[in-house]
Amino acid sequence: MRTKVAIVGAGPAGLMLSLLLRREGIDSVVLEARSRAYVEQRVRAGLLEQWARDLLIEIGAGERLQREGLVHDGIRLACDGRLHSIDFRQLVGRIVTIYDQKEVVKDLIALLLSRGGEILFEAAATALEGLDTATPVVHFHHGGEARSLACDFVAGCDGFHGISRPAIPDGVLTVYERGYPFGWLGILSESPPPSDELIYAFHERGFALFSMRSPTLSRLYLQCEPDEDLGRWPDQRVFDELEARLGGACPLARGPVLQKGVTPMRSVVVEPMQHGRLFLAGDSAHIQPPTGAKGMNLAFADVVYLSRALVAYERDGRTDGLEAYSRTCLDRVWKAQRFSWFMTQLLHRFPDETAFDRRRQRADIGYVAGSVAAATALAENYSGLPLA
Amino acid sequence: MRTKVAIVGAGPAGLMLSLLLRREGIDSVVLEARSRAYVEQRVRAGLLEQWARDLLIEIGAGERLQREGLVHDGIRLACDGRLHSIDFRQLVGRIVTIYDQKEVVKDLIALLLSRGGEILFEAAATALEGLDTATPVVHFHHGGEARSLACDFVAGCDGFHGISRPAIPDGVLTVYERGYPFGWLGILSESPPPSDELIYAFHERGFALFSMRSPTLSRLYLQCEPDEDLGRWPDQRVFDELEARLGGACPLARGPVLQKGVTPMRSVVVEPMQHGRLFLAGDSAHIQPPTGAKGMNLAFADVVYLSRALVAYERDGRTDGLEAYSRTCLDRVWKAQRFSWFMTQLLHRFPDETAFDRRRQRADIGYVAGSVAAATALAENYSGLPLA
Repeated sequence: MRTKVAIVGAGPAGLMLSLLLRREGIDSVVLEARSRAYVEQRVRAGLLEQWARDLLIEIGAGERLQREGLVHDGIRLACDGRLHSIDFRQLVGRIVTIYDQKEVVKDLIALLLSRGGEILFEAAATALEGLDTATPVVHFHHGGEARSLACDFVAGCDGFHGISRPAIPDGVLTVYERGYPFGWLGILSESPPPSDELIYAFHERGFALFSMRSPTLSRLYLQCEPDEDLGRWPDQRVFDELEARLGGACPLARGPVLQKGVTPMRSVVVEPMQHGRLFLAGDSAHIQPPTGAKGMNLAFADVVYLSRALVAYERDGRTDGLEAYSRTCLDRVWKAQRFSWFMTQLLHRFPDETAFDRRRQRADIGYVAGSVAAATALAENYSGLPLA
Repeated sequence: MRTKVAIVGAGPAGLMLSLLLRREGIDSVVLEARSRAYVEQRVRAGLLEQWARDLLIEIGAGERLQREGLVHDGIRLACDGRLHSIDFRQLVGRIVTIYDQKEVVKDLIALLLSRGGEILFEAAATALEGLDTATPVVHFHHGGEARSLACDFVAGCDGFHGISRPAIPDGVLTVYERGYPFGWLGILSESPPPSDELIYAFHERGFALFSMRSPTLSRLYLQCEPDEDLGRWPDQRVFDELEARLGGACPLARGPVLQKGVTPMRSVVVEPMQHGRLFLAGDSAHIQPPTGAKGMNLAFADVVYLSRALVAYERDGRTDGLEAYSRTCLDRVWKAQRFSWFMTQLLHRFPDETAFDRRRQRADIGYVAGSVAAATALAENYSGLPLA
């Protein structure tokens, strides 16, 4: 097998890249280790920045998104029993859309296949060869056979635990990392969310997030220990705690709990995001805590830059875009990390905090709620900085 | 002796309070432990927010300030050899003025005395009595004699090490405190500053600040150990280090070093700022790291609120202003602490930082330099939030 661009991983990054390339007449093959059913059901949050929503619509994958996605004009901060609205539409003229990542993946797979794109499911990449040459090869298993895909470029879109990043020789990458001394205990509850917008709650008992999948399905999170024991959290305790942390800002409906799990919080960035003919995109190069809702958006941004660079190379033989790829992505990645850190440190309790720090956090929330400039800074980051 | 308001301390807070009250026909006496010469020469930085400058002019103490004060339209951030301007005038229509605190004190003393105000120098307050009653008394030593000043209210404007705050009974105040794991090594140098505006330099070797007293007198600071040994810092090493941390952003002139010292960095806030008939103002209630340049400005804000409350009480018997005094002041104090913390964490090296944190700081500086919203947030805080 041979193609121009071998794409490892059928997540949002890989699928969008294949579509963007296809639109410009550049062939690619997507190799996905899991089954179609698996990737279409994989549980991930889903919040689209304005430009990412626009991109999905522009590429032709926006029909269901526009019908089913929940458009939010902003978010709310809860503190001391009060709700403070940060209205993105009013502040920066942009909105965000709640639409599960798995729905995005379903739409992108359907669209790509309908356009004659090639996705091999249950095709587990095992090795990347010749990344330093003009003719790299991706080795993979498919249907019980060892196969290979020759290509001009490899896009590593296979997530944080994929094979692409480890295929880069030791000593090439610098890894920047920060752990956080807590996790998020999340539940999916068959109950209406407490507000029609996301509520980020600051509370003495710890942070809580009140999000949703739909008007009748709530996605609710509690700051917890990084290794929290779920056995200690029967449904009623979870709801009691959520209610306590909402602090009376508004009522909280309860319902059957459909899922429960603990998300660890971590920031990782590797530099550069490219080695030879391999280009990393999305989670394979960077992960961030969910507080800033940046995951899928950064993945899309990466592949927009990568597709532009590949198109310039294929059309005009220009290599400047490919050479600048890592730098261009990382500028946005670090801004997103900065923002995710800002949201995280603003709202969580920390083991080493002092009473002074808590007051400072309260002042920060009060400042963001009361200053147009501070609210605008939050809004422009949350709803998505413009693409470079 | 008897007066309406006994003011302990002839710093910016106490002197301004006496002037504000005098203008409204309310008598006060200022007791100052030190001599006039001492307080007029006490070394303190001096940066006036726009409204504080306006207040000095309005009260009649602005003549020399307008002539000699250095008006700055903004500040500059140095990072990786580049200078980023944050233009307050353009962003928020406000400026700041560099004018030493001791010059402000000189002007306020001269003005207050010219208007018949009463200041007792070398009058060390020793005890505050009857704070819970309507007739408090300030005991003090003056001219070798023990004396007392009966009054309706006491204003504790005697700084962090004064007697006012400790006069409040145990258990009344909550103390919020944060230390910082570094200090500032500061020099006064007979050389022109590297820029006509303050430069805040972020550098791998640590933070540096390039400030000035006048176009020919530089005030320069290096982040250092909290207990840094000055013996290890001959003038040449100080200049070499300053130059290194400026990172080639612009040239640095050298000159004779007139002063050298280490400033510890600490944040403290006590709540409430009032007990019975005693009202704390300025450093007696809160200190903050110098990174945000807020000291004198917060002192002025406190006494503006206090004078308004006292005037409402004297004129109309209203107590609401007095009752709200602490709350009103603290809202601004915490915003200033938040901002001082923001500037401090943005620019310094921390012992427990990771390489990730350094990248995040760089992204933060890049974001502030590139986003109008983020630059506006910095500008509105630095140049002074509006008074409530």
